[in-house]
This record gives sequence, structure tokens and C-alpha cells, in this order.
Amino acid sequence: MDATDLVGLDLAPDARTTSLRAELAVFVAERVIPAEAAHHAEVTASGDRHHHSSVLEGLKAEARARGLWNLFLPDTEHGAGLTNLGYAHLAELTGRSPLLAPEATNGSAPDTGNMELLHDFGTTAQKDRWLAPLLDGAIRSCFLMTEPDVASSDPRNLATRIERDGDEYVITGRKWWTSGAASPRCRVGILMGVTDPDADVRGRWSMVLVPMDAPGVRIVREIPVYGRYDGHGGHPEVALDGVRVPVSDLLGTEGGGYAMAQARLGPGRIHHCMRAVGMAERALELLCARADARSAAGGPLAEKGVVRSWIAEARVRIDQTRLLVLRTAALMDAVGNRAARREISAIKLAAPATAEWVIDRAVQVHGGAGFSDDTPLALLWSHARTLRVIDGPDEVHAEAVAERELRRQRAGRGTA
Amino acid sequence: MDATDLVGLDLAPDARTTSLRAELAVFVAERVIPAEAAHHAEVTASGDRHHHSSVLEGLKAEARARGLWNLFLPDTEHGAGLTNLGYAHLAELTGRSPLLAPEATNGSAPDTGNMELLHDFGTTAQKDRWLAPLLDGAIRSCFLMTEPDVASSDPRNLATRIERDGDEYVITGRKWWTSGAASPRCRVGILMGVTDPDADVRGRWSMVLVPMDAPGVRIVREIPVYGRYDGHGGHPEVALDGVRVPVSDLLGTEGGGYAMAQARLGPGRIHHCMRAVGMAERALELLCARADARSAAGGPLAEKGVVRSWIAEARVRIDQTRLLVLRTAALMDAVGNRAARREISAIKLAAPATAEWVIDRAVQVHGGAGFSDDTPLALLWSHARTLRVIDGPDEVHAEAVAERELRRQRAGRGTA
Amino acid sequence: MDATDLVGLDLAPDARTTSLRAELAVFVAERVIPAEAAHHAEVTASGDRHHHSSVLEGLKAEARARGLWNLFLPDTEHGAGLTNLGYAHLAELTGRSPLLAPEATNGSAPDTGNMELLHDFGTTAQKDRWLAPLLDGAIRSCFLMTEPDVASSDPRNLATRIERDGDEYVITGRKWWTSGAASPRCRVGILMGVTDPDADVRGRWSMVLVPMDAPGVRIVREIPVYGRYDGHGGHPEVALDGVRVPVSDLLGTEGGGYAMAQARLGPGRIHHCMRAVGMAERALELLCARADARSAAGGPLAEKGVVRSWIAEARVRIDQTRLLVLRTAALMDAVGNRAARREISAIKLAAPATAEWVIDRAVQVHGGAGFSDDTPLALLWSHARTLRVIDGPDEVHAEAVAERELRRQRAGRGTA
Amino acid sequence: MDATDLVGLDLAPDARTTSLRAELAVFVAERVIPAEAAHHAEVTASGDRHHHSSVLEGLKAEARARGLWNLFLPDTEHGAGLTNLGYAHLAELTGRSPLLAPEATNGSAPDTGNMELLHDFGTTAQKDRWLAPLLDGAIRSCFLMTEPDVASSDPRNLATRIERDGDEYVITGRKWWTSGAASPRCRVGILMGVTDPDADVRGRWSMVLVPMDAPGVRIVREIPVYGRYDGHGGHPEVALDGVRVPVSDLLGTEGGGYAMAQARLGPGRIHHCMRAVGMAERALELLCARADARSAAGGPLAEKGVVRSWIAEARVRIDQTRLLVLRTAALMDAVGNRAARREISAIKLAAPATAEWVIDRAVQVHGGAGFSDDTPLALLWSHARTLRVIDGPDEVHAEAVAERELRRQRAGRGTA
Repeated sequence: MDATDLVGLDLAPDARTTSLRAELAVFVAERVIPAEAAHHAEVTASGDRHHHSSVLEGLKAEARARGLWNLFLPDTEHGAGLTNLGYAHLAELTGRSPLLAPEATNGSAPDTGNMELLHDFGTTAQKDRWLAPLLDGAIRSCFLMTEPDVASSDPRNLATRIERDGDEYVITGRKWWTSGAASPRCRVGILMGVTDPDADVRGRWSMVLVPMDAPGVRIVREIPVYGRYDGHGGHPEVALDGVRVPVSDLLGTEGGGYAMAQARLGPGRIHHCMRAVGMAERALELLCARADARSAAGGPLAEKGVVRSWIAEARVRIDQTRLLVLRTAALMDAVGNRAARREISAIKLAAPATAEWVIDRAVQVHGGAGFSDDTPLALLWSHARTLRVIDGPDEVHAEAVAERELRRQRAGRGTA
Repeated sequence: MDATDLVGLDLAPDARTTSLRAELAVFVAERVIPAEAAHHAEVTASGDRHHHSSVLEGLKAEARARGLWNLFLPDTEHGAGLTNLGYAHLAELTGRSPLLAPEATNGSAPDTGNMELLHDFGTTAQKDRWLAPLLDGAIRSCFLMTEPDVASSDPRNLATRIERDGDEYVITGRKWWTSGAASPRCRVGILMGVTDPDADVRGRWSMVLVPMDAPGVRIVREIPVYGRYDGHGGHPEVALDGVRVPVSDLLGTEGGGYAMAQARLGPGRIHHCMRAVGMAERALELLCARADARSAAGGPLAEKGVVRSWIAEARVRIDQTRLLVLRTAALMDAVGNRAARREISAIKLAAPATAEWVIDRAVQVHGGAGFSDDTPLALLWSHARTLRVIDGPDEVHAEAVAERELRRQRAGRGTA
Repeated sequence: MDATDLVGLDLAPDARTTSLRAELAVFVAERVIPAEAAHHAEVTASGDRHHHSSVLEGLKAEARARGLWNLFLPDTEHGAGLTNLGYAHLAELTGRSPLLAPEATNGSAPDTGNMELLHDFGTTAQKDRWLAPLLDGAIRSCFLMTEPDVASSDPRNLATRIERDGDEYVITGRKWWTSGAASPRCRVGILMGVTDPDADVRGRWSMVLVPMDAPGVRIVREIPVYGRYDGHGGHPEVALDGVRVPVSDLLGTEGGGYAMAQARLGPGRIHHCMRAVGMAERALELLCARADARSAAGGPLAEKGVVRSWIAEARVRIDQTRLLVLRTAALMDAVGNRAARREISAIKLAAPATAEWVIDRAVQVHGGAGFSDDTPLALLWSHARTLRVIDGPDEVHAEAVAERELRRQRAGRGTA
Repeated sequence: MDATDLVGLDLAPDARTTSLRAELAVFVAERVIPAEAAHHAEVTASGDRHHHSSVLEGLKAEARARGLWNLFLPDTEHGAGLTNLGYAHLAELTGRSPLLAPEATNGSAPDTGNMELLHDFGTTAQKDRWLAPLLDGAIRSCFLMTEPDVASSDPRNLATRIERDGDEYVITGRKWWTSGAASPRCRVGILMGVTDPDADVRGRWSMVLVPMDAPGVRIVREIPVYGRYDGHGGHPEVALDGVRVPVSDLLGTEGGGYAMAQARLGPGRIHHCMRAVGMAERALELLCARADARSAAGGPLAEKGVVRSWIAEARVRIDQTRLLVLRTAALMDAVGNRAARREISAIKLAAPATAEWVIDRAVQVHGGAGFSDDTPLALLWSHARTLRVIDGPDEVHAEAVAERELRRQRAGRGTA
């Protein structure tokens, strides 16, 4: 640890966060988690996996009434005005029920990142049209970034074109893993595409707002995750065939797409990691409950040495991961997202891996029930597993952490 | 290795197996694997995930014409008459396409185990009614063993009753993970239940044949695996509410259920393990192809050190696992299934773990495509993962291996 | 994380610790580490592995002059008066050179624990005779606890007797892994033995002070660690054959041994863990330097993907482990050693494992040089590896963490 | 598995090997292992770690009398004339006591490789002078290959010069990890050096025979392995300062060094792997015995779930590794060492890793005794650990396996 590494070590929540956290903990434990089954039943009965359940709408109303709404937004006018550290303490709790809690508190991806972009870069007209209903939970949104058939970890591979034609942009391309886009509640997408193919990495891409009902926008197919077609709008492949939007739908400046994407990714990644800690805690809770309830070969599973060794390892892994996530959040507060980007890469490696490990052990303790949807474990697992690819695969983040460490060590040796 | 451990070390296939293996390899590579997409499309278009595709039926006809039919049955009249070792060399190849190849060659679980039970214990009438069409590939079957809410690794937990009432048995209980039962082609189940609740472990259970259209047999629900509802009849929960079958539908003797289940499990487990090796090989093949085809950060993935380390580890793991599976098969041939049961436990630990590891690395190399069904990897993964629970969770098999090893060591020390 | 888990989250050092830390960092980097080779050479030349080198004595004088002396002692009169958190920030730095830095700053095990016992429980006479010269660095001490042929993780197995005979105690037994006892500078041992064999666990054991030159105290043999006979007094087996000490040499109260041992273990364990973090950092530093300096197969090792993945994983593991250690120290400050004992078990699991992992990768990057003593890695490795047994093997600590977690979860479910 | 992969699958020993194996098993179990303590005591008492004990000399005489001598040599005149497969079955047994059994049966590294080189490439005079006494067990030898400060995995880094000067070669350079060289019984070394610095890789190096008492040969220092200075001649660093040998001491042809080194490495590597399997078996035996003998927390360690899971995993790993080693040996017999070199790389990865894993668990079950030399575990561990570097570090072998696999897959796809 360098002398400069002594910043960002106070990980305690402030008084307001402590209070919000206590309220959110109660809300998630007493209202959200008990409602999961009813939501699931309502969606199943509707015959439409993207059905927006009255259960969820009720939870939203309740969260709002309790002041547990838009907690993610650092802005104090529209959001809770929390620091990254403060939000980390809260977001973990929503990760305990990834199916319902984030949306119930209006803190789902990709809406949060989209709202931040609109908040930071949107014109007044754009904010009125899209940010307001998003902050209100009236609509949802998607983020059109990843493309099939290219390695998305490198934006240089993106091929979707945004071409100026008079007062309009014409968009042509194909996106996938466009989470949420298949829901009728998803009304707008933020699309990243190439405006200037001759520009270098900084000026090449722009972002435009695309109404999902614009002519030429088409859901090609939904993509399953390990065979599961997710609700809440799923993860479709979206074709954009000559979609025309007015130039006023440009978000920020032309050529500013890369910088905005970078700005968006930092918080997005840490939000995923915060929730991953909560997912791991939920899994450990289920694991312990099952270990107490189920007997085999002469005694409860909770008395089997191997199961106990998993519980101990889970506890240690989760506690370490939470501290690293909190510390990264505190560091972002202290030095900014960009200076903390290697620490963000580090938690992007650590948190999904921890969640995946704990969830998988919980599945094993549940036997066949662990694979089924009789518990949330199978869903939690696929969330955790996909996080090892989403927003940059593990290998890309490891590479970034290693490169930084080598440079740091060289500097320490005076050989940089 | 003890002196007694020198048996079962000739792992080479005999001439006939070598010949069958070459033919099966061509069939799987040139006919089955290329047909996966067409089968998938036909099932999807049918709107019924249990749709029995013309693609599959065509493959069955072709396999039969090529003499690649009922390879699993050691009986030379109805089957290929192969040793366990011989079949191991073949079954691996069907594992390369678990979606199609086992059924195309009439070697799917649970039909194989059911056919063996009928072959070994069935009356002439039972064989005529059920074994003949099963061997013919005209119908399918299920095995009603596992029950919800109890640890199925211990049969003492089974609660389903088979009560004699005059010339009939009355069956009451609930089963789940009844693979295949939701297909209309599934016409019969072999059900394990308690006939004598006062008897000890050996005389407590019996098996009866249950036509799936018998009154009182009801598919309660299908159970997803990591969110995926499998085709081919899925894995339903089945209620048996006062189902009546004539006493002539008893399989084997009353009270003989436990012994028959044990007899069935040995080959069943090794068949799973053989196919798991093939699944791992398929995954490694896909991994290498993707690593050659996809570039990131300045070069093909096949040139990245971490990806290469995975390829090497996969190669070493697969080769070790195959040898252990082959050796266990050879040992079963030499000393019998019962004497080799600890070795069967050992491969039940090793083979699914190897397959899961390799498949997961292949998924990672594929990024988002790895999660989708654009490759077979997601399906392969869930097969491999569930194998760590099906037919006894890893922990139960590890316990068995450990107990045997401790006894063996004590005997070696003269302290047993 | 429970509401009660929000204590002990401010991990930042206070101003005084920050200042001491900066000075200690310079001392270790510029004075201690560069002196390792000279110390090693002087010891080798002396022909006595327990030789107390002039190099080390010089470092001690220098540390004292710089105010870097007795940092471990919370007492402000004789020590630095730091909190556990404060000391954790410092002790990590001494772990970077476990061969010299702890003793150079008078913070070696087992002296630190012994000084704490004397400080807390010693009579004035005991303090004058033994604590003063220990605090002064004039003598060293040992702790006679572990016994051969029994599982020392359970004190109930201890057999050494302390029998009252008039005004004397007569001690009979055998101890081993008595670190430091073979040095002529080791003048006193604190011995734990049974005073009342009929008492239960709380009143059974007592501690007495045993001068190492007392008749009947005999170094039976020194015990190597992975073949290495350590210096600094090694780890001998010590026979106590009717050793007589006056009753005034009782430490604390008769029957109070267990409680004192528990009191001693908490800080001792966390000190080991703090240093383990420093050991891991030193290893990562050496790993990176070597990876930059050594080329193979066409380029520096620092450009090989596998080596880079190790560097990234090392960085993430170390950072997580440090945070867990700091947090445990802060928790000890907030709620006391006893209430934090499960967290101490958790870091006892995490820190040695992290250190061992990083050191082993560093060894691998060094090839043959990594095994030799041309780098400190081989010595660091054996320190780290033995920490997984010393003061309770991993399995015992995992058991404790699991038991606490299960209880905590039951309480959360209201089923405790 | 390709069709070509069906060769080398008969792993059973032939009748003669079976007979030799039975005799060797008895010899190792009843004579060698029980003699380890006496050998250790005699060496310790001698004050010279390289002392050649009468215990060992007695074992040698006994092995010879029993026909268990020079088993490694495929030549039937001077050796046992076994295949690689046959020798694999035997060499495993000598790995159970690496301290004594290999030398007792005249099968120690580096003598075996040196004897093979002399046998295959030596002149009659060279054979008379050096091969005869080596085969007789009268002297020992060393192999001067590795050099300090360069990555030895690539021979292009070797700098030692062998310069022709009239009828003599003049050798100048420095070697290290020259196992055995510090023993007075070591009379000759085979040295690899550069004869033609301008030649390419095939013609650059030569091997010469260097009597250890030749002027200019100097043991610079012995190098410890994890702090242990091994006996049997240790692993010294050797300086060669203008050492002169007659040109008749050239082994094979000038420029033929690389080819000879390659020829030597194949069998050498597999011998290490064979013994590593035996080391793992010995460790598992000790682990089980300790688990039965030692109790903690209310019962024998053999009843603890975690210990049992280690036993099971050890059993599975060892069995898999043995099969892979046997299969590689059979493949070497079938297709030659060169064609099997990737399989040799594969076992070089697998066998030391398995041995290290099992030994480390056995150490943990032994607690402090596991670190000491009261059991052979600490010594076994360092053997296993160093094998992950010796004869090519794991990473180099993994690279070779990956490259071959990628080529194989490309060929299978028709894209090579």
C-alpha cells in the first residue's frame, strides 16, 4: 500500500445513509422478497414473460412512499444525492432480490446509467421527454451498444453507423444483448454508433436517442441466457434499418460517444458489483437455511464438514469482496471515477466470482431444487455468471489490473 | 496400486468396437452435429418444445440403417453385445451432441436403464408390451424415482406407496425430475415405491410399470433447469393419485426394488460419464475454433496466454478423465458392477467436473454468444452441472470413495 | 451485513499512525531490506544459525532512535499506544522482511505476546526481571505451549504437569515448536501446563515463568521446517524434567492459564495476519521485478498472459485481504478481542492463504532461483505455509466461522 | 479422441513386469521404507549430509541380489530390457521412497539419463571408464546443463563455452542445480556447452564428459531447496574455469548436443512423473494413517468431512494421473519419444501437480509434524514442488500442449 493508498479508507456510511439503509433493509426483507413468489405467479399466469406485474407496481409505489426511490442518482434534486460509498451500502441490499428490488426502487440497469447520461448530457427537451418519465418510473429504456459477431470489449469493433442526412441522423446496424428492449414499457434507447469513421478513437462515436417505436427499429429475436428467456424486456437482438431521428436527438456532442460511454461504465460496473455482494448474501442465507432443514446420511447438512467449510469460505469471501467494493466506491468519491478505474476493474473481477462461487455451493446444497426456479438460486447464478462477461470480460479487466500493477511497481523501483 | 489393481488395464477397443466407433464418429460428425440447427428450428417453429422433429426421426432411421442402434445393450440378440469398455468408446461420441445423438442411436437416458431393467427382470408379457417398442425407438419411457422435499441420495427417504389391493397395486405419491415424462411419446414409467414399510432396506421397495395414460397419473408441472424448460419430455413433477395397475405390472419381485435400482445405477452412471467426456471434447473443439476466429486487443484469442493455458488444462483434464472412465468400464467388465462401484463413484466425481470446467471456459471465450443458444455450450453446461447432483450428489460419491480408501489403507496396515 | 456490522468500518489510520507508517516504510525499504544480505552473510560466516548479527543489532539501535520501537504495545508508557487498527497499518510493513524487521523494531513473535502477558498479568517483580529487558530488546523469550503427539488445537490435550511442592512448582512434560528457544538470547519461557487435572476447562491450566537456564530444562532437538533449521532460536523440542520454580513465578492466577492463552491468541493471530499481507506484497514486488527482468520465448515474462493474470489476481487478493485484516483490527478496537474472535478466525484463514498463493506464483516466476535462498521467497513461503497450522489449523478456524454464521442466520430467521 | 488416439491403450504390465513389480513392491515396503529412519540417523550422526550410508549400500546389495537393479535401462544386456510402460509400473514404486529407493535400485536421476546417453552415444573407452561403474553402482554422476541468470527452459540461453584447443576442449562457464555434484561419489559430469556459437540451434551445442576432479572444476556453493540442503550430493553451483578435457571425451558428435539433450529429456521427464505418482500414493497412505490415529474435536480426523473429501479427491486425482502416465509410456513405446512429446508435456503438468496437492493435504493433516522431518512429507513436498520447474516449467509445457491442440483442432476443421 502506497502512501497515496491511504485515501478512501473510511468505509462507514454517514448518518443519512445509515438511516436509508435500515429502511431499505426492512423494505427488501419484509416487502420485496416475500413478494417474489406472487410476482412470479402473476407473470406466469399472464402468459407474457415481459408482463409488468401489479406486484411490482405496488412495490414501486411503496418504495417511493418510503423515500427509497432513485437512490442511485448523486444529484440531490432528482435523486438521493448519495456518494458512491453511500449508494454501495444501499445497492447491496437491492442485490438480494435482483428480480424485483432494483426496479422497485427505480434503480435497474440499464435505466440508471441512461438516466445519468441524460442528466449529465441531455438537453432540456431531452430531459423533459425522457428523463422525467424515467425518474418517475413510468417508462423504461435500453442501451444499444454491444454488437453481434465482434468482440465488444473493444469499441473499435462497433460497426453501427449514424449518418447525418440533412436535419436527421440515419442509423443502420445491429445490436444485441439490448437488455430490456422487448418490454412494451421500454420506450427509448440510447444508441452508440459511428458518426465519423475516419476519426480516431476519441471522435469516432456518438450517442443518439432512439424511440423504440421509430420506423426501422425491430426486435429480431430474444436471446436466452443459459436457456432462460428473461422477463423485464429480456436481452433482444435489435435491427436498426435506416432509422431516422432528428439531429436534436443527439446526446451530448457529435464524437463524444466514447467519453460518455466511459463515464457511464464506471458507475454501472460498481453498481453491478454492489448488487453481486447482495446476491451472494442471499445465496448464503438460502444455503444455511437449507443446510439446517435438510438431513442426509444421519444428520442435518449443517453438521456436515464439507458444507460447513463452504459456509466458512463463503463468509470470508463475501466479507472481503464487500470491503473491496466499499473501498472502491470510497476511492471513486475521493479521486474520481477515472483515477479509480483499475480498482473498478478489480472489483469487477472479484464480486461476480464471489457471487458465482457462493451461489453454486447453495445450488449444490439444494440438489435438484437448486436447478429449478423453486428458489431464486438458478436465476441468481445466471446473473452472476453473465457478469463475468458483461461490461468487459474478466480477462480484459485482469489485463488492466496487471498493467497498472506493473507500472506501479516499476515506478517504485525507479525504472518506469 | 495394489496387485489386485492390475486388472482392467487393457483399455483398447476390440476390432468390432473399433469399427463401430469409426462409423459412429462419422455419423455424429457428418450427420448429427450438422442437423442440430435444423432440429432446433423445427422444434421452435412447432411451438411445442417436446415436438419430436422429423430431423431426429430421420437420424434415427439413418443410425439404424448404419447398424448404430441399441449399442448400449450387452445382449447380442437385441443390442450390440458390447462390453462396458466397448460401449464407453462409443458413448463418448454420442456425448458430443447430447441433444440428438443419444436418441438418434436409441441410447438416451432413462430409456437405456429402463430397457436394461425390462430385459433383465421383465416377464415375457412386459417385454412384448414395453421392451419391444422401446428397442424399436417407437416409444419412450421415464423413471419415477426422485421425490420432492427429501434427500433422494438416500432411498430410505422415498415416501411413495405401492399398496396391494386384490389383484391391483394402488400407487400414491409424488415424483419429480421425471425426465422425459412430458413428451407424448413417453408411454410408460418404471416407478419405485414402498411396498412394505416395515421391511428393512433390502425388502422395502418394489418397482412397477405405470402406463403414463393410467388414471391418476398427472403431470403437475414441468421443472426448468437454470430457467430452461428442456424438450424431449422435460423433467416434470408427476402426481400419482391412487393409480391402479394390475399386479402383473410388478417388475421383478416384490421387495426387490432396491437391488434393481442398484443394478440400474451402475451402468447409468457410467453412461453419463462417458457422454460427459464427449461433451467436454465438443466444448474444447468449439473453444479452439472460437479462439482462432475471434480477435481482441491486437490478435486472435488463440494467441492469448490465458486462453492457451485453458486449452492445455482442458486437454490434460479430458485425457485423464477419459482414461479413468475407460478403466472403470474395463473393471466393471472384469469384476462386475458391484465390485467396481467405488470406481464408478470416482468417475461420477471426475467426469461431470471436467465437462463443467471445460464448457465454462468455452463459454467465456465465446462471450455473450456462449450464454445464448447460438452455440450448444449453454445446454452442455446445464447438462454437466446437473450431473453433479443427478444419481447422487458429488458429496455422497466422495464419501463413498473416502470410506473405501480408508478401509483399503487400514487393510494395508493390518489394522482393519 | 447486519446493522451491527456497521461498526469498525473506518479503516483509515489516524495522524500519528500515518506519520509512524511513513517513517517505518522508509526504514524497512531503505535500511532493513537492503541489510538482509549482510545479515545472512554474517550468520553464515559465524557457523551458528542462531548468531545474533551485528547487522540486526545495528538495525535495532536505529529503529529505536527513529521511534520505531515496541509499536505493538497498546500501553502508552512502554509502547506506542496504538489501536489494533493503527498497529495493523504498521505491522504489515514489518512483514515485508520477516527475517529482520519484526525483531529490529522489537515486535517479534513470541516476544510480543509474552510482553503483553507480562504487562497485563505480571507482578512488579516479574516485570522488573523479565518485562524490562524484553521491552529493551536485551533478551528474548519463548512460549511453551504446543506438545508433540497431541492435537494442539485443543488445549484439553495438553499433558505437561505443573505440580505444587511446598513453595515451588515442579514442571514435567515435553513441548515442541518452541520458537526461539534455541537462541542463547532466549532467557525465559512462559509455560502453559496443568495445575489441576480434575478441574474443568476454565480452571485446569496455569502459566509459569521458566528461566531457560533452570535445571531440567533441556533442548532435545531443533525441528526443521521443510528441511530448513531456522535461525533466531529455531523451533526446538524442549524437555522439562522436574524443573523447579518458586511459586512466585506463577503468572496471573492458578487456573487462569486458559483465559490468559485466549487473551494472548487474539492479538497474536492478527499480528501474524498483518505481517502475512506484507509478505504477500513483498512477493508481488519480487514477482513483478523478475517478470520485467527475465525473458523467455521471445519476450519478457511481464508480457506473458499467464504471468499477467497472476499479477492481477495477486493484486486483487492482497487488497481484499488487507481490508479484511484492517477491518478486523478496527472491530477489535470497537467491540473487543473476544467479540471479534470469529473475524479473527476469518483473517487467520484468509491472510496466510493469500500470502502462500502470491509467494508460490513469485517462486514459479523465479524458476530455480525461487527455491534457493538467493531470494527471500523460499523463506517467506515456509512462513506462510506454517501459518495455516500455527495458532489453530485452517480447519478449526473454518469450523468456528461456520458455526457462528449458522447461528447468525438462525437468529435472522428467528429459529435460533 | 481421434482414430490415431487408439494406440497405446493397453496399459497392463506383461508377465515379467508383473513379477518384477510384485518383488519390487515387497522390497520397497519391507526393506526400503523401514530403513529410511536408520539412513537418516546414520547421515545425521556422520555430520556430513552427503554421507553415503551403510544402510543405503546394504539396500543396494539386496536389490541387486533380488534382480531389482538397473530396471530403467531398455537394453537387455545391461538393464532389465523393459518397455517404457513396464518401467512405469515399477518406477512408481520407487517414488514411494524417493530418498532411498531410486538409488537402492540404481535408478536415480541424473544417473539414469547419463547412463542412457553413455549407452547410446558413448565410445567403448567412455563406456568402460564411466558406464561400467555407473551400471555397477560404484560411482555417481551429474548433468551440467542449467545456468544461473538465464531462463534455462530455452537452451539458446546457455552461455558455457567448449572451445577446441588442439587435442583438448577448454570449458569455461558456470552451471547450477547440478544435482549430485557435491557428493564425493560423483566422479563424472556430462556437460552441455556451446561449441559453435555461429551455428543454429541444431549444431550449436555439444556434450563432453568432465571428470569432477579435473582442474578448474569447482563447487562454488550448494543451493538449498526451500532452505534444505539435500544430501546425495545436493544441488550445487559449479564453476568451470578453463577446464581441459581431451577431445576423446566428446560424447557423440560435435554439434549433436541439442539432439542428445532432447533424447535424454523424454525418458527423464516420464521417470520423474512415474515417481511422482508413487510420492502421491505414499502421502495418501500417511494421510490416512494419521487421520485414523489422530483425534480432534470429538473424534478421529478420519471421520471429519473435510478430511474425507481430501481423501476422495486424492484417490481420484492419483488414479487419473497414473493412467495418464501409463498411457504416455505406452504411447512412447508405440510411436516413439518424439511423437509422444506433447503427451510427455501433459504428464509433466499433471503428475507433479497431483503429487504436490496430495502431499500438501497430508502435511495439513499432520499439523506441525508435517513440516518437520519426522515424516517424509516435507521432503516429498519439495521434490514435487521443484518438479513443476525442473525440466521445463509448467508454463512451457502448457504452451506446448496448447499449441499442439490448436493445430490438431485446425486439422480437424480442415483449416490448418
